[in-house]
Amino acid sequence: MPTPSLYTLGLDFGTLSVRALIVDTRDGRAVAEAVSEYAHGVMDAALPDGTPLPPRFALQHPQDYLDSMKASIREALSAAYTAEGVAPDHIAALGVDFTACTMLPVDRAGMPLCRDPAFAGEPHAYVKLWKHHGATEEADELNALAAARVEPWLASYGGTVSCEWMLPKILETLRKAPDVFKAAYRFTEAADWLSLMLTGNETHAAAFAGYKGLWQDGAYPSEDFLAALDPALRGLVGSRISPIVSPVSGIAGRLNNRGAALTGLPAGTPVALPMIDAHAVLPALGMTRAGDLTVILGTSTCHILNAAEAKEVTGICGYTEDGVIPSLCTYEAGQAAVGDCFDWFVKNCVPASYTEAARAAGVSVHAYLRLLAERKAPGESGVMALDWWNGNRSILVDPTLTGIIVGLTLATRPEDIYRALIEATAFGTKVIVEQYEAFGIPINHIMAAGGIARKDPLMMQIYADVLNRPVEVSETTQAGALGSAIYAAVAGGMYASVTEAADRMAAKVERMYTPNPGAAQAYAEMFRRYRELHDHFGKR
Amino acid sequence: MPTPSLYTLGLDFGTLSVRALIVDTRDGRAVAEAVSEYAHGVMDAALPDGTPLPPRFALQHPQDYLDSMKASIREALSAAYTAEGVAPDHIAALGVDFTACTMLPVDRAGMPLCRDPAFAGEPHAYVKLWKHHGATEEADELNALAAARVEPWLASYGGTVSCEWMLPKILETLRKAPDVFKAAYRFTEAADWLSLMLTGNETHAAAFAGYKGLWQDGAYPSEDFLAALDPALRGLVGSRISPIVSPVSGIAGRLNNRGAALTGLPAGTPVALPMIDAHAVLPALGMTRAGDLTVILGTSTCHILNAAEAKEVTGICGYTEDGVIPSLCTYEAGQAAVGDCFDWFVKNCVPASYTEAARAAGVSVHAYLRLLAERKAPGESGVMALDWWNGNRSILVDPTLTGIIVGLTLATRPEDIYRALIEATAFGTKVIVEQYEAFGIPINHIMAAGGIARKDPLMMQIYADVLNRPVEVSETTQAGALGSAIYAAVAGGMYASVTEAADRMAAKVERMYTPNPGAAQAYAEMFRRYRELHDHFGKR
Repeated sequence: MPTPSLYTLGLDFGTLSVRALIVDTRDGRAVAEAVSEYAHGVMDAALPDGTPLPPRFALQHPQDYLDSMKASIREALSAAYTAEGVAPDHIAALGVDFTACTMLPVDRAGMPLCRDPAFAGEPHAYVKLWKHHGATEEADELNALAAARVEPWLASYGGTVSCEWMLPKILETLRKAPDVFKAAYRFTEAADWLSLMLTGNETHAAAFAGYKGLWQDGAYPSEDFLAALDPALRGLVGSRISPIVSPVSGIAGRLNNRGAALTGLPAGTPVALPMIDAHAVLPALGMTRAGDLTVILGTSTCHILNAAEAKEVTGICGYTEDGVIPSLCTYEAGQAAVGDCFDWFVKNCVPASYTEAARAAGVSVHAYLRLLAERKAPGESGVMALDWWNGNRSILVDPTLTGIIVGLTLATRPEDIYRALIEATAFGTKVIVEQYEAFGIPINHIMAAGGIARKDPLMMQIYADVLNRPVEVSETTQAGALGSAIYAAVAGGMYASVTEAADRMAAKVERMYTPNPGAAQAYAEMFRRYRELHDHFGKR
Repeated sequence: MPTPSLYTLGLDFGTLSVRALIVDTRDGRAVAEAVSEYAHGVMDAALPDGTPLPPRFALQHPQDYLDSMKASIREALSAAYTAEGVAPDHIAALGVDFTACTMLPVDRAGMPLCRDPAFAGEPHAYVKLWKHHGATEEADELNALAAARVEPWLASYGGTVSCEWMLPKILETLRKAPDVFKAAYRFTEAADWLSLMLTGNETHAAAFAGYKGLWQDGAYPSEDFLAALDPALRGLVGSRISPIVSPVSGIAGRLNNRGAALTGLPAGTPVALPMIDAHAVLPALGMTRAGDLTVILGTSTCHILNAAEAKEVTGICGYTEDGVIPSLCTYEAGQAAVGDCFDWFVKNCVPASYTEAARAAGVSVHAYLRLLAERKAPGESGVMALDWWNGNRSILVDPTLTGIIVGLTLATRPEDIYRALIEATAFGTKVIVEQYEAFGIPINHIMAAGGIARKDPLMMQIYADVLNRPVEVSETTQAGALGSAIYAAVAGGMYASVTEAADRMAAKVERMYTPNPGAAQAYAEMFRRYRELHDHFGKR
């Protein structure tokens, strides 16, 4: 017999799908889970009506979030009931994490503007996904103005605002689709829009505002700055951007009737304030102390560091006090293409002889390339890469940078390039680690998370060797959803704080990779060359 | 009825095969031709007995030259007789061209040392093919010593001796296989060894000695220099290197009984002095005037420029007065991997979806990639490359340099990289053209030759656009063999000089590519970036 009200539901909205996880709050054990892929996926070539999209666009359809949420919760609840008799009314609370900045324009009722037939063929009326890179010019303009005016918040974002963040995306809409800008009652994070759909309350979670919305020390960029950027932006905060900012580990509200219908859970169930997907991972891994660096490896990589002190670190995307773990500052750095880069390689650069050999061996092409790459010593092939297939987020903050491969010869084989791409992402992480340390922020403990961390021992060993530090990997496969369930446990009142909840509910360490001294030495030498390439090509 | 003694036979020894061409000397018309591939091809992994080879080795088996020559001549003669009644005794003379420096050690009787059972498992006893790159350390050592001693001949070779040339290859044998060095009566170009096999005369053709053997102004490097390089090299010239140097367009001798048996032609038939394969192309294309630049595109590219004056050009491989066309200086520059680079790409980097689409369309993968690449505008993809997959021959003369691709993004497709590789080889040619002009050597007329020139209009248009000059392509598919037949016509006495013979026998221009102004402008901008990359990565 299940213990009533000791379960929470974590919802993890990723780039391609949403995952629902039902956990026992006493120990964090997973009771049931389900995944549902978005019907439209990532729209980077055309809108649903066939309207072609410009280069570097990455849009989503907001209805997919609701449809996939409903499907995944229904399936998880069904499995939880079958397995352990856990029923919807045993779920004490739910928590949500989401990609960011993933934003959309909505009308006064919260309806996404793309649902208005007048805007069905208008790209800027859809959700701009985190990796939408249409606003590079607007980000350049914003950065130039902020630098010229020596805006006080600029340093907190490493001296540069990314084109992936909220204000460049809004400015892009103002410039490219002024009708959408005019019609927008709010520009909102998809996460906050989901809170609105579930509870009827408008939220603006502190982490999103702080990391992606230029909200620092309790304020947004000044009216003067916004008006100088474009007169139409005067009064933006308080009109098209919600003036409310809600602190971490609070409650978004309780399910209203619409929320109950969307989730299949009883109306009145508490909903935790949404978290950025990468941040939800921290309590799930037990990474709640200062000096803990969590490296989340996925299509891109996010490096989240808890620190006791707030300092400005050039090229690191942002930090927010109390944004993730109360009383700590949490910095966030990133690499824009990691899994995406490996997938690009497998899709575009692996010959038929390899795909056939992989099929014959009954393994994926990735696994086959790893098998071959594993036989090579560090540096043996002479191939090196700069991992900038989707620009550089940290520490150069330049989305226009591009990938580079050096050291190619007639003897170079696909596995040599594949290994060089893995090594390049490790070197990119080392650049970030060195930048933190150069600014006096200690790193005591590194944990890797994300699907790649558990599936690719070669890559994790390369990371340990390149960083020359132990790298731990957690046993959880659903860190985001587990983290959301932990925040839900606080929202539901089972624990007094996230830290306390994480101490009981966090997943265990599955494996620790320790550096091999010989490989570490070879990589130290290669890193000097990587750093030269990085500094040469990173100059604007 | 054929007119007796108005026909010559041209033999073109390439990297993988020998071609025999029978032509009418009155107009250069091809009567018959045949090709025979070398049984052992290029040995880069193992010797025939299974002995594994070190990296960068490229060896051949000398018996293949004799076997393939015999087979190709027999087939060409048979076809000539069938077609026009031309019999072996109608062949007035034969000419030979060969890759260079392609060298081997032989005993006093001219027997290749690899035929000695004691050396069957010894790589250094085999033919070192022109693209054998085992002697990079020895070339470095030789260059450092020559620079330190300010050797007078060094400037004629652009300030650097390539590891592909004769002396580094000999020094490599001395250092790595002293027994072979000791046993060698001569180190000889394969071309000269072939003359010996055909006529019984030892030759050492001026072009080979001048371009590949450090013979300049009638002399080899001094005894002092050779002894300083290694005491064992004292007395090298006159012992292990033949002291004879034979001037261009002379006669090697007449077929002796062995030569008659090898060729199926009557003993006594004149044999022209052998030519370097690339040089034989010049008269075949009618490129016999000062200012004529012949760009021979194959696995690698060779740029041969006739000039009225002898000057020293940094980074250009060498020049020899009267080496190719009497009374002119002929410079030779090169790019080490061109067709090889495209083949590497198709073999290693093209996904199954493309190879399947090519098969479905009934075209080669190269042709399919060209179809896709043709739809892109210059610079559209943002991808650029440095074409150094096999080092850089001109103007950096550094075989340790490697290929580089920049501008890669998640949107990069195989055809973008393929086009960038083609463009990179065009930019590499432009660097060479600019270097000639920077040293005051005019270029008035550019003709492209080699299989790629006739098969790839996209590439030829890119060359015209990048160079911003017209580029002509000849109709001949057998320029090397036709050139050898022209030199044979002089050896056989039908013409008084190569120029006179070329005026009558040269092939016609099939197509002229003229620059597209828009593309030329886009490429001028890209070339500035190429040049920056070139200069940055080209620094030693």
